[in-house]
Amino acid sequence: MKIAITGAAGLIGRKLTERLVADGTLNGRPIAHMLLMDILEPAVPEVAGGSDIVFDTQAVDISAQGAYDRLASLKPDVVFHLAAIVSGEAELDFDKGYRINLDGTRALYDTVRQGGFNPRLVFTSSIAVFGAPFPDAIDDDFHSTPLTSYGAQKAMGELMLSDLTRKGMLDGIGIRLPTIVVRPGKPNKAASGFFSGILREPLMGQRAVCPVSADVMHWMASPRSAVGFLIHAAGLDGARIGPRRNLTMPGIAVTVGEMVESLGRVAGSEPVNRIDWEPDEFISGIVAGWPRNFDAARAAELGFTAEQDMDSIIRVFIEDELDGTTH
Amino acid sequence: MKIAITGAAGLIGRKLTERLVADGTLNGRPIAHMLLMDILEPAVPEVAGGSDIVFDTQAVDISAQGAYDRLASLKPDVVFHLAAIVSGEAELDFDKGYRINLDGTRALYDTVRQGGFNPRLVFTSSIAVFGAPFPDAIDDDFHSTPLTSYGAQKAMGELMLSDLTRKGMLDGIGIRLPTIVVRPGKPNKAASGFFSGILREPLMGQRAVCPVSADVMHWMASPRSAVGFLIHAAGLDGARIGPRRNLTMPGIAVTVGEMVESLGRVAGSEPVNRIDWEPDEFISGIVAGWPRNFDAARAAELGFTAEQDMDSIIRVFIEDELDGTTH
Repeated sequence: MKIAITGAAGLIGRKLTERLVADGTLNGRPIAHMLLMDILEPAVPEVAGGSDIVFDTQAVDISAQGAYDRLASLKPDVVFHLAAIVSGEAELDFDKGYRINLDGTRALYDTVRQGGFNPRLVFTSSIAVFGAPFPDAIDDDFHSTPLTSYGAQKAMGELMLSDLTRKGMLDGIGIRLPTIVVRPGKPNKAASGFFSGILREPLMGQRAVCPVSADVMHWMASPRSAVGFLIHAAGLDGARIGPRRNLTMPGIAVTVGEMVESLGRVAGSEPVNRIDWEPDEFISGIVAGWPRNFDAARAAELGFTAEQDMDSIIRVFIEDELDGTTH
Repeated sequence: MKIAITGAAGLIGRKLTERLVADGTLNGRPIAHMLLMDILEPAVPEVAGGSDIVFDTQAVDISAQGAYDRLASLKPDVVFHLAAIVSGEAELDFDKGYRINLDGTRALYDTVRQGGFNPRLVFTSSIAVFGAPFPDAIDDDFHSTPLTSYGAQKAMGELMLSDLTRKGMLDGIGIRLPTIVVRPGKPNKAASGFFSGILREPLMGQRAVCPVSADVMHWMASPRSAVGFLIHAAGLDGARIGPRRNLTMPGIAVTVGEMVESLGRVAGSEPVNRIDWEPDEFISGIVAGWPRNFDAARAAELGFTAEQDMDSIIRVFIEDELDGTTH
């Protein structure tokens, strides 16, 4: 089993790599070779007792000429395509967004179809392919009318993925990730950053600002679930999926108020008291255009699973990132 | 008023040009200049008594470097983007389909946004952006899951059009045309060709083959209506449309059996008897994946209109193409 991961140095890429190395297998076959690609050279995970996997790391701009040459030589059985610039950057730099998120994806598709191999290609799309107004719960037949360039680029990648798969040129599955919480690391300026921040900082003994009101609802899953989606997608029988190859992943629709209640249940009142409620019109306005809730029936039928409640999502963070200790 | 038309030598492009020249105005302003582009040099329509319009014709591959240089120099107020390779060719030649229908469209968008002018850009999309299975009537919120490369390319063009419009880089409207009947000219090998053929040839005294059963339903409008959609789209207030810039155009859902009944009502039993019913499994299979019926509510609200029945569509053909005479 040979695996290539683009965007391997990002949060999900790192966790996916670690999980694959820990498992040692994918789709029931031992992993022999992993190609890890990112704009900065990805780290090879340290393995207690060593690993038989041959690692190859590549620092590369996926939109550059020849970016996928090594991937083409490897002829991987599974490609996880996670590389992208994020929503905020794609919105600020129109050309770069289309260059990386669309052209960089298309170059991967072209490499695969021209390379004479036919890997399972798992494309990470996003619920950003949807734009307001929405029904109460977005079902699997609802149209993609993104309100960000990032969402448009992901939706275009989805269309081409389905088309190439229909033509037998690759074997693609697009998975639309929920917003991932709780992200570890430092606070960032992403408009969605507070969804992690209002849990992460308080659990680590620091104050956090919540810029929206308690009734704001959003669709979320843990990083551990995101990795689970990717691995499940890698092994799924294409015949079961049919020609509609892009799937909204499961998650939970929770309000900010419910998140904070959950924080109190899991970690007590002290972390809750570290949240400063400072409404921000700009961020509230952006968030108002985002999906709130889904009916992700197809993904559930196909066996994708995620946490059922926010308490579990918070416990995943405490286990995976805080070694079980809160402040 | 300066106008550019890509695909000006095609059926709709020619009829649009003729209509604009006959009107002499668009959006209430006199037409001063028209740039007509196509892969083969478009003809300038002959005008009884002459015309004050300055015509510029250009034979060009829209995916070629510099294809839109003349358009950029003209800085048109309205661009009608009709150029595309058709569904069958895009399916046979994957690379050419993406090159012309996606890259050629993107190059136009780039020309406009980099050119410092902000025209109304009317993009002809297609009901091919939809793929089976369908509800009884496809509403304005139904997702695009095309089952042809042509449909995927049009859907990608739609996404980018909306994104650029949202960013203020152009002022786009995408209109999803129904299947256009009755197309004049010779029979062609398009899978949809029989929808016109079973009316056109019999009305001209020739035999025609119907390769599908009488209960096959499809969504149709006349060439005259298609031109009407384009002109209406050119003048529509963008604020009324909102951020969802791609609209399914009105049409009628009729069965092949109803089409033939209509032919009998309008032109008598002789043309009807010229139809040979010879079911073709291959064509029937393709057509089974096509949309049957729509609820095009948004387009209706925005003032787009089409024929209400097949009798009217047949009469349009007899008036516009047969000088009122049938055989």
